[in-house]
Amino acid sequence: MRAYQDLISFQSQTEALAQISGRQDWDQETMMPPGAADQRGEESAAMEGVMHARRSDLRIGDWLEQCEGADLDAVARAQLRHIRHSYDRTCKVPARLAAELARVTSLAQGVWAAAREANDFSAFAPKLTEVLALRREEGAALADGGDVYDALLDGYETSIKATEIEAMFGAMRPRLVALRAAVLDRPAPVPLAGHFESDLQMRFARDLAETFGYDLTRGRLDKSVHPFSMGSGDDTRITTRTAEDDPFNCIYSTIHEVGHAAYEQNISPAYRLTPLGCGVSMGVHESQSRIYENQLGRSRAFTGWMFGKMKDAFGPFGIADEEAFYATVNRVSNGYIRTEADEVQYNLHIMMRFDLERALISGDLAVGDLEAAWNDRFAADFGYQVDRPSHGVLQDVHWSVGLFGYFPTYALGNVYAGCLYQALRADIPDLDDQLAVGNLSAATSWLGSHVQCHGGLYEPREVIAQAARQAPSELPLLSYLEYKFSDLYGL
Amino acid sequence: MRAYQDLISFQSQTEALAQISGRQDWDQETMMPPGAADQRGEESAAMEGVMHARRSDLRIGDWLEQCEGADLDAVARAQLRHIRHSYDRTCKVPARLAAELARVTSLAQGVWAAAREANDFSAFAPKLTEVLALRREEGAALADGGDVYDALLDGYETSIKATEIEAMFGAMRPRLVALRAAVLDRPAPVPLAGHFESDLQMRFARDLAETFGYDLTRGRLDKSVHPFSMGSGDDTRITTRTAEDDPFNCIYSTIHEVGHAAYEQNISPAYRLTPLGCGVSMGVHESQSRIYENQLGRSRAFTGWMFGKMKDAFGPFGIADEEAFYATVNRVSNGYIRTEADEVQYNLHIMMRFDLERALISGDLAVGDLEAAWNDRFAADFGYQVDRPSHGVLQDVHWSVGLFGYFPTYALGNVYAGCLYQALRADIPDLDDQLAVGNLSAATSWLGSHVQCHGGLYEPREVIAQAARQAPSELPLLSYLEYKFSDLYGL
Repeated sequence: MRAYQDLISFQSQTEALAQISGRQDWDQETMMPPGAADQRGEESAAMEGVMHARRSDLRIGDWLEQCEGADLDAVARAQLRHIRHSYDRTCKVPARLAAELARVTSLAQGVWAAAREANDFSAFAPKLTEVLALRREEGAALADGGDVYDALLDGYETSIKATEIEAMFGAMRPRLVALRAAVLDRPAPVPLAGHFESDLQMRFARDLAETFGYDLTRGRLDKSVHPFSMGSGDDTRITTRTAEDDPFNCIYSTIHEVGHAAYEQNISPAYRLTPLGCGVSMGVHESQSRIYENQLGRSRAFTGWMFGKMKDAFGPFGIADEEAFYATVNRVSNGYIRTEADEVQYNLHIMMRFDLERALISGDLAVGDLEAAWNDRFAADFGYQVDRPSHGVLQDVHWSVGLFGYFPTYALGNVYAGCLYQALRADIPDLDDQLAVGNLSAATSWLGSHVQCHGGLYEPREVIAQAARQAPSELPLLSYLEYKFSDLYGL
Repeated sequence: MRAYQDLISFQSQTEALAQISGRQDWDQETMMPPGAADQRGEESAAMEGVMHARRSDLRIGDWLEQCEGADLDAVARAQLRHIRHSYDRTCKVPARLAAELARVTSLAQGVWAAAREANDFSAFAPKLTEVLALRREEGAALADGGDVYDALLDGYETSIKATEIEAMFGAMRPRLVALRAAVLDRPAPVPLAGHFESDLQMRFARDLAETFGYDLTRGRLDKSVHPFSMGSGDDTRITTRTAEDDPFNCIYSTIHEVGHAAYEQNISPAYRLTPLGCGVSMGVHESQSRIYENQLGRSRAFTGWMFGKMKDAFGPFGIADEEAFYATVNRVSNGYIRTEADEVQYNLHIMMRFDLERALISGDLAVGDLEAAWNDRFAADFGYQVDRPSHGVLQDVHWSVGLFGYFPTYALGNVYAGCLYQALRADIPDLDDQLAVGNLSAATSWLGSHVQCHGGLYEPREVIAQAARQAPSELPLLSYLEYKFSDLYGL
């Protein structure tokens, strides 16, 4: 079919350009000389112009129309689904609004950073009000009379609605609040102490990345301020960071990013540089990073093996044995910051953001009341007061750059990881024996063949349901967390 | 003027995209994982498609027409001169021919590499015949009835014709052949021996780069197989390589590339990401790399300073004193390879290529006779026989990728460097005293303000003539070489 072939050829070029664009971002965070920042801004704007022109190219609409009703296989139908989804969203947003959003969010990020530095929410509120108004306008354009928040969410996670997430989170919240309180009532494990040389951490991280199946011949590991994964297929790069008093930051950032990168590396080569050739959604992506990092990487069996490897790599440090090390790795403690949260508390951070941003989008909450609402909710779930805005409402960059609808995908990723882990354990009965000798190959192969290889072929909930052999639900994650932390803390 | 502004805005975006495209090439040579090569090929093809579409965009022709007769300043006129030059060349070549050239040269490079490996010119000849035929066709399309070789040369160096180069080279050849013979009749200086650790070389190279005025806050130095410089303005990167038995390779590659990079870094910021914002021609570019590398970097005064620095960096090595070191740095010896040639012999390598490729383009020389013609010419100028094709006609990649008309710009660069050096010495009477303490700032500032800052404002020969205060000529270079090597070898 000529129209289909022309369309796929056009989209494949767009995907190839998107890889280049992404690699520029990687370069900016890892390699770019400091004095190049302004010039890079102009370069990126030119590239964004090219990408926007391609995404909104009217020929896409013609080609899609010509493909309608054609007898196409499942792969072709999935390609069209992705193209249609992206094209429709692009067309629905007026060019004037898209440009205004780009301009305002670019400014707002700087205002947010300054307000966080100054610990002053009121310095950020006017700019946030502007961003919110524009995103509400965009959401309304996308929603076509439907739910505005759903329309924004749909940009990050298809196949789910906010009411479904609300139900899921509603079931999770009381059990996590209770688990958190019970755990914190018990004596805390010792924290890690000592000096862990940065170069040794990077060498250790590289070995760990390969242990978890990251293919360094089709990727690379560098340092950046914030760890990330970038690229698809045969050029999927990750970054991590090092703090010499806290090797877990480097280690678990690496394993987390390896989860993202393995997803991109293991997508069927037949989909390379096509709309199916990258991870299907933020939630499914996060399910991979989280299952690598937590269910596998923070398990008793694996940490037991890693304890020995760490002593080999860094020399002895002040943890007595494997069991104490397992407790230290999984230490639960009070803290304000989402990105530093443990498995028990992390989702509570997400849920409050989800509820607050939905209220902002619906208009039930005004920006002027956001800080108070944040602080009330934090006190309710965590039992103590936020001590300063940079530890509270100003801690995350997301809202400043307009990412409303994005936060819940983090917790969805954890929920999906819970579902996948249940099925994976059932299929690999001796998983713990394997992890105890640092053998991740069966587990990562299972994820490769059940989830990662499909790329964008299935809808997010569909690929999870097929792999987990059940409709996605929060229950496996809750059982896993309650079992793990009850055992660990003797509840 | 609206048309002018639209045109410059469009071209500035193109220049910004060209920076990204160039940086992809840098990435490919320095950072890309080995397994990413195939995917990178597809990405690069997509980017090349975008660039080609922009370069041949018909709106450029309309804008140019609307600008004709307008009252514009010198900068605007120079911008239009560059845009017109590039647009006319693009339009004159049929799309079918451009695509065929891209396809055949991409294949031919691989065939050339295999033939060089096998030392068999006949394995390369058929593919070279194809490339030559296409380039002759392209040259004829560009020439509009004029000289075909000139039309190809014009893609690398404007403001000069092959007959002018022929006259210049004709005057140089006998004097260089004579100088070479006289020098090689004298006892050779000792070559450098010893072990020079790779990491120490890179640290030394970094210090040298800064000594020569390279701004590392707007660039970076990495390793690659073949040293190169990439980018313009605030993101101008260079590479070098290391061989532990030969630190001069790393040192002089670095200084050479710093010459190229300093040119790009020092162009007036007002021209950033516009057609004037990069070096004006291959010849002027090479004049900068060569004057940094040779006239400055291989001078008695500078090598005297560097001798001490090398002993500090690497520990003592077997050279007695500054004068012996100066002789070793400037050692002239027999050799087949252009890229390894010294100042005396380098231009002889270029001249034979210029004569041979002109004969190929005119049809006076058939590809089947090229190897014999190469070997005869080499024996005539160098006095001994080529021992194998990889040391002869197969040594350079250029012709395989269609670069006919490019070679003479290397020697033009040396000629221009000779002119500039004469004026620079006259303007900085105590230059040697400065170089003797490793102070390059007056020399590089002179080049910055007389040549580099202008970017593409003037035609190549114009910018050299203004800086040198005389029409470009081979005489200053010949005097410099004859004086330097007569002195050094006691002729």
